[in-house]
Amino acid sequence: MAVITAPRPHPLAPLSAAEHTQARDAVAKLHGPSETIFFRAIHLQEPKKAELQPFLEAEHTGALTEDTPRPAREAIVEHDVIRADRAEYINAVVNLDNGKVSTVSAPVPHQPYFTPESYTMLSGEFDLFNDHCINSDLFKDAMSEFTLPEGFEVCVEPWPYGPPNADEENIPRLMQGLVYAKDARNGNPDSNHYGYPIPIVPIMDWHTKKITKVERIATGGIGDELEAKVRSDKPVKLFENHKGCEYVPELLDVPLRTDLKPINITQPEGASFTVQDDGLIEWQKWRFRLGFTPREGAVLHDVHYDNRSVMYRVSFSEMTVPYADPRPPFHRKQAFDFGDGGMGRAANNLELGCDCLGAIHYVDALMTEPDGSPSPGKAVVCLHEQDNGILWKHTNFRTSRAVVTRNREFVVQFITTLANYEYILMFKLDLAGTITLETRATGIVSVTGIDEGKTSAYGNIMTPGVMAQNHQHVFAVRIDPAIDSYNPADSQVIIEESHSQKIDPKTNPYGNFYKVQRQKVEEATWVDAEPRINRLLKFENANKKNPISGKNLGYKLVAPTTAMLLAEPEALAARRALFAHHNAWVTGYRDGELWAAGEFTNQSTHEVGGVADMVKRGDWFTDRESNGANGTNGHAEDEGKRSSPVVWSVFGLTHNVRVEDWPVMPVEIFQLHIRPTDFFTANPALDVPGTRNNASVLLGGSCCTSSGDKNNAAMAQNNPVTHLQGSGAAVPAKDAGANVDEKLGKRLSKTFNGIFGSKKEVKEVN
Amino acid sequence: MAVITAPRPHPLAPLSAAEHTQARDAVAKLHGPSETIFFRAIHLQEPKKAELQPFLEAEHTGALTEDTPRPAREAIVEHDVIRADRAEYINAVVNLDNGKVSTVSAPVPHQPYFTPESYTMLSGEFDLFNDHCINSDLFKDAMSEFTLPEGFEVCVEPWPYGPPNADEENIPRLMQGLVYAKDARNGNPDSNHYGYPIPIVPIMDWHTKKITKVERIATGGIGDELEAKVRSDKPVKLFENHKGCEYVPELLDVPLRTDLKPINITQPEGASFTVQDDGLIEWQKWRFRLGFTPREGAVLHDVHYDNRSVMYRVSFSEMTVPYADPRPPFHRKQAFDFGDGGMGRAANNLELGCDCLGAIHYVDALMTEPDGSPSPGKAVVCLHEQDNGILWKHTNFRTSRAVVTRNREFVVQFITTLANYEYILMFKLDLAGTITLETRATGIVSVTGIDEGKTSAYGNIMTPGVMAQNHQHVFAVRIDPAIDSYNPADSQVIIEESHSQKIDPKTNPYGNFYKVQRQKVEEATWVDAEPRINRLLKFENANKKNPISGKNLGYKLVAPTTAMLLAEPEALAARRALFAHHNAWVTGYRDGELWAAGEFTNQSTHEVGGVADMVKRGDWFTDRESNGANGTNGHAEDEGKRSSPVVWSVFGLTHNVRVEDWPVMPVEIFQLHIRPTDFFTANPALDVPGTRNNASVLLGGSCCTSSGDKNNAAMAQNNPVTHLQGSGAAVPAKDAGANVDEKLGKRLSKTFNGIFGSKKEVKEVN
Repeated sequence: MAVITAPRPHPLAPLSAAEHTQARDAVAKLHGPSETIFFRAIHLQEPKKAELQPFLEAEHTGALTEDTPRPAREAIVEHDVIRADRAEYINAVVNLDNGKVSTVSAPVPHQPYFTPESYTMLSGEFDLFNDHCINSDLFKDAMSEFTLPEGFEVCVEPWPYGPPNADEENIPRLMQGLVYAKDARNGNPDSNHYGYPIPIVPIMDWHTKKITKVERIATGGIGDELEAKVRSDKPVKLFENHKGCEYVPELLDVPLRTDLKPINITQPEGASFTVQDDGLIEWQKWRFRLGFTPREGAVLHDVHYDNRSVMYRVSFSEMTVPYADPRPPFHRKQAFDFGDGGMGRAANNLELGCDCLGAIHYVDALMTEPDGSPSPGKAVVCLHEQDNGILWKHTNFRTSRAVVTRNREFVVQFITTLANYEYILMFKLDLAGTITLETRATGIVSVTGIDEGKTSAYGNIMTPGVMAQNHQHVFAVRIDPAIDSYNPADSQVIIEESHSQKIDPKTNPYGNFYKVQRQKVEEATWVDAEPRINRLLKFENANKKNPISGKNLGYKLVAPTTAMLLAEPEALAARRALFAHHNAWVTGYRDGELWAAGEFTNQSTHEVGGVADMVKRGDWFTDRESNGANGTNGHAEDEGKRSSPVVWSVFGLTHNVRVEDWPVMPVEIFQLHIRPTDFFTANPALDVPGTRNNASVLLGGSCCTSSGDKNNAAMAQNNPVTHLQGSGAAVPAKDAGANVDEKLGKRLSKTFNGIFGSKKEVKEVN
Repeated sequence: MAVITAPRPHPLAPLSAAEHTQARDAVAKLHGPSETIFFRAIHLQEPKKAELQPFLEAEHTGALTEDTPRPAREAIVEHDVIRADRAEYINAVVNLDNGKVSTVSAPVPHQPYFTPESYTMLSGEFDLFNDHCINSDLFKDAMSEFTLPEGFEVCVEPWPYGPPNADEENIPRLMQGLVYAKDARNGNPDSNHYGYPIPIVPIMDWHTKKITKVERIATGGIGDELEAKVRSDKPVKLFENHKGCEYVPELLDVPLRTDLKPINITQPEGASFTVQDDGLIEWQKWRFRLGFTPREGAVLHDVHYDNRSVMYRVSFSEMTVPYADPRPPFHRKQAFDFGDGGMGRAANNLELGCDCLGAIHYVDALMTEPDGSPSPGKAVVCLHEQDNGILWKHTNFRTSRAVVTRNREFVVQFITTLANYEYILMFKLDLAGTITLETRATGIVSVTGIDEGKTSAYGNIMTPGVMAQNHQHVFAVRIDPAIDSYNPADSQVIIEESHSQKIDPKTNPYGNFYKVQRQKVEEATWVDAEPRINRLLKFENANKKNPISGKNLGYKLVAPTTAMLLAEPEALAARRALFAHHNAWVTGYRDGELWAAGEFTNQSTHEVGGVADMVKRGDWFTDRESNGANGTNGHAEDEGKRSSPVVWSVFGLTHNVRVEDWPVMPVEIFQLHIRPTDFFTANPALDVPGTRNNASVLLGGSCCTSSGDKNNAAMAQNNPVTHLQGSGAAVPAKDAGANVDEKLGKRLSKTFNGIFGSKKEVKEVN
């Protein structure tokens, strides 16, 4: 395979199909006939920061030449080597400059994520899992305990096995299934099976492909025991009084609304942004590179505003969804949507006019097939502009002159489906230098069966016999700042708090003073939210001051303050998601450390290599003697060193399910803002024109005084506004109707114009 | 004056100009020639709830007839009676059915709010204040301590005096001024004076109209004393190195952006809502009446969804803005924007295509002139629909069928200018039954002078010699719920919390369970936020169950968790804003109790009649023996009784000012959500059609693999995807290129379609 030559791609450009295939072939060549390779994912191996930094600096200063040193162009090839007795998960790195495999990891002692294309078959493990279950005697035996309504089919949905119990040492790669029935009588393939849960959980060993166990689920309510009852000989009739739970329009038993008139969003002169083939995106004064990884989905690299760096990398890192039903096996019902599945792998193909409105640019990404060949993931990201109300306004009350500008946003959106559930994830950039990350949770809540008529302390009834379990979605966002510099030594994180102060005759005589306190984060740590003192994190450049304020150039993190993981700290669900215990973490930068819960979450019993381990390692952010090994090089991976801070923001939804969340839930939204604080020398959006939009139209007349106005004019005849000359005295009631003075009337008008700028149009008196 | 006759207005309809004038004349008649009346405000006296309730119930059940008992139609007339020696503030209520004055309050022992039309003159107290200052010897003497650049003019801005000091017993009505210079050389009336603060504060007695005092302001920095230095004989030269601070486009020293292409929002088929002259608004399944008061601005009354009541009344109630600069007289720099000024009085006249985009309906409101005649406040509220992304979505990964609906919102927006500052306030209703209240703070931050080169612990430098002081904006929203009933006895408030549970073999063997605890609010109280346990308030109907879940019909409050007032509890700023000490208050309903900080905030030394007093009164929400007076009638106002709960949500911005906030600040946004929880029997937006919007357009091609695709096609020739028959074994690397099996290829395609629903378009293999 020929080495790829000039024009050389940007170091952050996604792999081309040619590079993808080159990497695949290089790894394939390593293996002999006895070895079968399953290719999980092939994607860009992001350059080491220390190697990329000089390249980016040269690029941004216009000093880039063919001779500029650049990091090796590398691909990571995640693959399984399948042997007779076992399968080994291996990460290989291929150097695309010379076509050689540069590193091959040792087989990983963890269960890797699930992919659509498991090594165990070609036909999709989800399908095969379903078939294996349905054909298994164990499963048939379990199913014989139930009778389904005529015309219903069984349907098994694969779930990660979750955390093994204490007595499950060295277990193989397992999958557990949630079992549903589907009303097939309507012949509609999208008939919603999620509303018909069957209370058994089959478990399959992926290596033997045998169903090893079918667990029974308790279906009781308040006061009933946690364990499933032994069934009577007589099969239990399921779903006899079921109300149905369809969501596709043709199956709804309610008519669709017909009175929602269209809103059209158009850009007749085109959009204000440009997109290059290599992922470079420019909009207004923003410039960044869009990445897309199988695990994270969209990622922002090298984010600049007005040619000044703001962020090295911003990404959604992880999310865990533990369920709060104490009844086994639900303690194992916990998904890590990034680590067990992958938001990029699960990305929707977005639809114009549905997922995104307006003038939209779609971005494709390469996916990897089981044999390592690339296949296109079409329209997995959409890019567009949108209006978000008013950005800034001021009215001069003396003249009534108003200046108002609109808040335009640039949106990077992707949407993922993980079995029953959807996540809509967005990066938004605005005209005032703010970066916003938004999460929207929607889709179908996960349910289990409950004896009809009973209620539960573990969830809420969605429809008779069906309970949605309380659960949480805890997100982690990873922020690698570069505040007007890519020099790690410039980067610091500050905790700012605002504290009440006791009354003191010398410093606070009236008690209205509050003290803004700053504390530098000296070494890796977690930080909890404390809204009572307005605690927030700031990303700062320790060596560059704002010329106006004299303070460090900075950005601040404005994150949602939410409950953290509620599982008891000793719970399996908690031990494997330590990241979800604190609102924020500050860790030392290491190349490739992107995962809040660690790289391997599937079947994990505790968090390995996640933020908690990064903190334990004890990296520090100011000069000091390295304890032990040299602080800056030659260190062991698990040993602290002088580093630059990376911030992880954690927030989430404690989802005590509402009936309104059924059968598909309205979005639950969170927004995290990264806002400039003394990064600029003034409002960066001061130069946004307050142009009037001429496409807007006036509806009807004004309402509440449209009649009133007429009366008003009429009354004005009967009760002319009246003023005495000069003095400050006001209207003698009995004199109403006398001494009209036009000059004073005008003065009055001017006054109306003036005060509070509230009334541009006034009634002249005469 | 003739009595207004049929057709009779709806009890909640704003006053017509005729009614307004009728009320004015009724009060004017009470007074003789010796009495001069200054009319502050004339507006609807909202009916007592007990009298309005049966009328509304009849209206909503279609049982309304001419004979239906209706509450008296009344107007409140807020006016001053000006006597030689004093002015008395009086509230009179006029019965518009018989034209008679029904009640006249005793003169109020508090200073009323400021209005554009103070009783002290007709020419606008702001203007007159400015003139009085500039002509006063005291002021001239103070100004002689400074020299201004050539061509600058002095400009004095009135502020509420704030809280009197302990040694200021029974002081008269005072106003304090912030003094600025204005660069008049450019001849532009909108040249921004706020950037040129002069460190003196004149104080005027409104009764004598004398400047009684001119206070000096310290201009030091860190380490300097709190008191102003005694000036040297030589005048201090101000603003020598000032950088300017213009914001109107024609005065900017930076060019406006020219590359922001228009976004047009249009509704070619018109809007989906209707507005009646009497304020009735219907949109989708929502129905409510829009009110507008001088103090609150827009108010929502009688809010229904799908013919079921949700809210009796929702409003923004108060906001206080204390400044944290400990140097006198800044301890008195604290505005109550509702109580001292009035959001309705200060409402902007909104501009199409600037303040609102799309198809807009504007609402006028009547304002009151000093002689009591009505004048139109044009376009003080705008009504429109907007798109807010995706409302709900699910993709069936087995078929790739996606169903997605857009999140349409109905927006009620008004904007107020209070001197230097703007507030954008919104009510938003959505298709899923949620009510959102949004606040946006913008405008020009309040500054003071600082010796050039110095920095301060009390604020931040905006431009040389100019410091913006740290401050807070603490909002209070008032929520009077009516959850599917107007019967007060049905209404209850629940505190819901989610608590971790210790591991217990019987109840929580694996520790993943968390307990959702409910506590009924039995009597008036405050409630602080506690995000760690996901504490939230629920409005419930105690007597109506959700037929699906069996739980009480309810709505929940999802409010921002922010810092409360940071002033020390003993501080004047804190004592007069007790409402701002807690995130939420639950009080007993009383007619006319609408003000979180009490009715009279101007020159207040402590909160009177605000939420703290309402709690002290000790109303309760369940049946019990009344202690003392009869629990339901004949009670004294300050005595507790059985009542229905009203909830006050408090949140705010701790504004440690950024350089980016200068000269006009980008909006700081908060949103409060009131969401149905088991109020409906399913997602109320399930019937929203997922119609594709055909006005949306595709930009360019997809980017990142547009080249990749070509290569991809090419590579496909060299590396056809290959599969072995049947078995679960994967691709032997060395066999690449052999044994193509189309059927399996198709199967593979189906798999790609299926898993995670991520890839609708797949590469067929052949």
